[in-house]
Amino acid sequence: MRIGVAGLGTVGGGLLKLLAQQGADAPPMEVVAVSARNRSRKRDVEIGHFVWFDDPVEMAETAPLDVFVELIGGSDGPAKRSVEAALDRGLAVVTANKALLAEHGADLAARAEKAGAAIAYEAAVAGGIPAIKALREGLAGNRVQAVAGILNGTCNYLLTEMEASGRAFEDVLADAQRLGYAEADPTMDVEGFDAGHKIALLAALAFGAPPDVRAVETEGVTGVTLLDIRLAGKLGYRIKLIAKAESIDGAVRARVAPALLALDHPLARVDGALNAVVVDAEPVGRLTLIGRGAGAGPTASAVMADLLDLAHGARRPVFGRPIAALARRAAAAAAAEGRFFLRLLAHDRPGVVAAIADALAKHGVSIESFLQDPARDASAVPIVLTTQRCARASVVAALAQIDAASVTTAPPRLLSIEETDTAAKPWS
Amino acid sequence: MRIGVAGLGTVGGGLLKLLAQQGADAPPMEVVAVSARNRSRKRDVEIGHFVWFDDPVEMAETAPLDVFVELIGGSDGPAKRSVEAALDRGLAVVTANKALLAEHGADLAARAEKAGAAIAYEAAVAGGIPAIKALREGLAGNRVQAVAGILNGTCNYLLTEMEASGRAFEDVLADAQRLGYAEADPTMDVEGFDAGHKIALLAALAFGAPPDVRAVETEGVTGVTLLDIRLAGKLGYRIKLIAKAESIDGAVRARVAPALLALDHPLARVDGALNAVVVDAEPVGRLTLIGRGAGAGPTASAVMADLLDLAHGARRPVFGRPIAALARRAAAAAAAEGRFFLRLLAHDRPGVVAAIADALAKHGVSIESFLQDPARDASAVPIVLTTQRCARASVVAALAQIDAASVTTAPPRLLSIEETDTAAKPWS
Repeated sequence: MRIGVAGLGTVGGGLLKLLAQQGADAPPMEVVAVSARNRSRKRDVEIGHFVWFDDPVEMAETAPLDVFVELIGGSDGPAKRSVEAALDRGLAVVTANKALLAEHGADLAARAEKAGAAIAYEAAVAGGIPAIKALREGLAGNRVQAVAGILNGTCNYLLTEMEASGRAFEDVLADAQRLGYAEADPTMDVEGFDAGHKIALLAALAFGAPPDVRAVETEGVTGVTLLDIRLAGKLGYRIKLIAKAESIDGAVRARVAPALLALDHPLARVDGALNAVVVDAEPVGRLTLIGRGAGAGPTASAVMADLLDLAHGARRPVFGRPIAALARRAAAAAAAEGRFFLRLLAHDRPGVVAAIADALAKHGVSIESFLQDPARDASAVPIVLTTQRCARASVVAALAQIDAASVTTAPPRLLSIEETDTAAKPWS
Repeated sequence: MRIGVAGLGTVGGGLLKLLAQQGADAPPMEVVAVSARNRSRKRDVEIGHFVWFDDPVEMAETAPLDVFVELIGGSDGPAKRSVEAALDRGLAVVTANKALLAEHGADLAARAEKAGAAIAYEAAVAGGIPAIKALREGLAGNRVQAVAGILNGTCNYLLTEMEASGRAFEDVLADAQRLGYAEADPTMDVEGFDAGHKIALLAALAFGAPPDVRAVETEGVTGVTLLDIRLAGKLGYRIKLIAKAESIDGAVRARVAPALLALDHPLARVDGALNAVVVDAEPVGRLTLIGRGAGAGPTASAVMADLLDLAHGARRPVFGRPIAALARRAAAAAAAEGRFFLRLLAHDRPGVVAAIADALAKHGVSIESFLQDPARDASAVPIVLTTQRCARASVVAALAQIDAASVTTAPPRLLSIEETDTAAKPWS
């Protein structure tokens, strides 16, 4: 199997090292060509014996390859053009590029199907965790009800650090940038877009739909305050950035948002830079996978798994089913139901609690727990409450009434509570 | 793909239901023949339209099949004979039979290799958790340092219940038998043999060795007392039945034994009938998989995954490498090192603690924590201690000295402490 690698950053370098270490009993695989932006950059792997291409598209079009490995990144530009060229030529493509697949996955899968080529992308979601393989193969005979995960290690690290250190988001982010855990421009991570790309791919596989990144409701972690984390903790919850896709009455709702998890939720203790994926499906029940979500080692491991699958002749449709069998079926956010966490900053005067309780009652929202926090500054009293199960729309309407009553000093915070119990019915 | 199913208990019935539910976009798969002990037994799936065989060996030898699914169970007898017949004929075999593979895996893999046939056994280990697939494919490019798991749901349920209810092993077992969580003869489960079969298979895959069930050091949960659980808890640990295989200086040590886990160990909170597998490997790091380990649903899901792999043409060597590349390399138990938990029942008289401390010191065992429990009956004082890292052989020698000093009233309890931190070196 002749391999061309486009992109020789830390992941590309890690892959070359890993390929060089494979034992004699591994299937024969050989890197024959490489491409990167800068040929003479100092690298800790030797690349002089590979055919060099300045242009990855030219490599995809002309090099004598069986597999094109795309580690360039970016949803467009040379990554997209080179992958298209490789597929059109019938080459198998292995990529770690979640943005490319989330944005253009349906088109690329159609190209692959037409040319009889494979696209493998284990490294695109949750790094070293074989989440793609688990959904596409391990649970292939199941009906998935929900797939949820902690899919962005940067956000998870930031929230874990805020909770552990009691320091504000901006401080923790600045440290993370110094340590290399966050990018100089952290927008893709902290605003939830990276997790959105990943959940779009998991949703496609789980529910047999083309990836639809625009249908993912996305909220990042920049609005999570120490107060939220502390008060959620007092009620027995932790706040995590959760990416989730679930089947609601036959449609699929996908979202990324900070959410509350009770301590016995399988994602509640997944800390630091770890990633995790939880699948609820029938008949398997709940499956939880936890591991390292990023970095050269885990990502190279995932690319390697894809290469070995190809070497062993394993072929699956890109999103688990033939293109013609994929059905788009996004659910409206309005349909969402659940339990919710509200954090309000209220004026310190009589009648405030009554106004809040009245607004919730008017909209049929039952309160499960209520905490007025004694810690306060002069200007505002923090009030948190959790609701019983209700329509999100009812909570939003109640919040509008509370806002109109002018009892609060700042916009409220509304977060979902992720249920610990699986929605999966016992099947047998 | 024409399928024959031998064994129509709860798993076989679940599989037939699941196969009947597959969508039109699934690869074409058809059950054509079935075999079971009793044709007329009442079942909640219709089997009248399948060709019936009283004898599974005859079905394996003569039915027009591509895949033989063995759900009979047992390491010998009709399960073994029918699988051998199917392989010799070149049929792919899918089996949930850990005992068969753990006992005869090397022979069966050689038969399969000779005939160009596949053996798939995702259902044999950890039920619905795709642990076989993760090791064989997802981590195929990695070097595994250790694979550990909670692989017997019955034992995990019993230990969880003892801890939660404060009731003794025999009481909890009797309840579990009433509830159907434990067999009338629970020996295979509670003595650790079932988990031993499973870790033998995981070790084979992880380390490229033929399965060697006789090399697995096996201790069950029958000796775990409420006192052990309570005192371990006081020191911040929980007791779980851990099956583990690890690479020690190039050899493989496999064992099943109750062990202590600190609360931040990824297996520490895997409770009830759940199973879990933790793999430490380079370059992926640590990967944790948690899910339902038994029952018709999870097991049928795993069998289905194997069938869909076969339908998609995926073929791997049975134990990840060609037979000729498998190397037996069991490590001696004497080589074991780690931290240990000792529970002693000592006479209540002066000099006892000194005698214990002296014995440990003489054998170079450093104490990490020491607790003399105030709760006591008239005859004996419970003393627990944890050691710093040392050779297991040193602890055993110290215990012999303590025994010779006649300061204890009963045999000591020696358990390993599983380290939370991965042994995996950062790779990049």
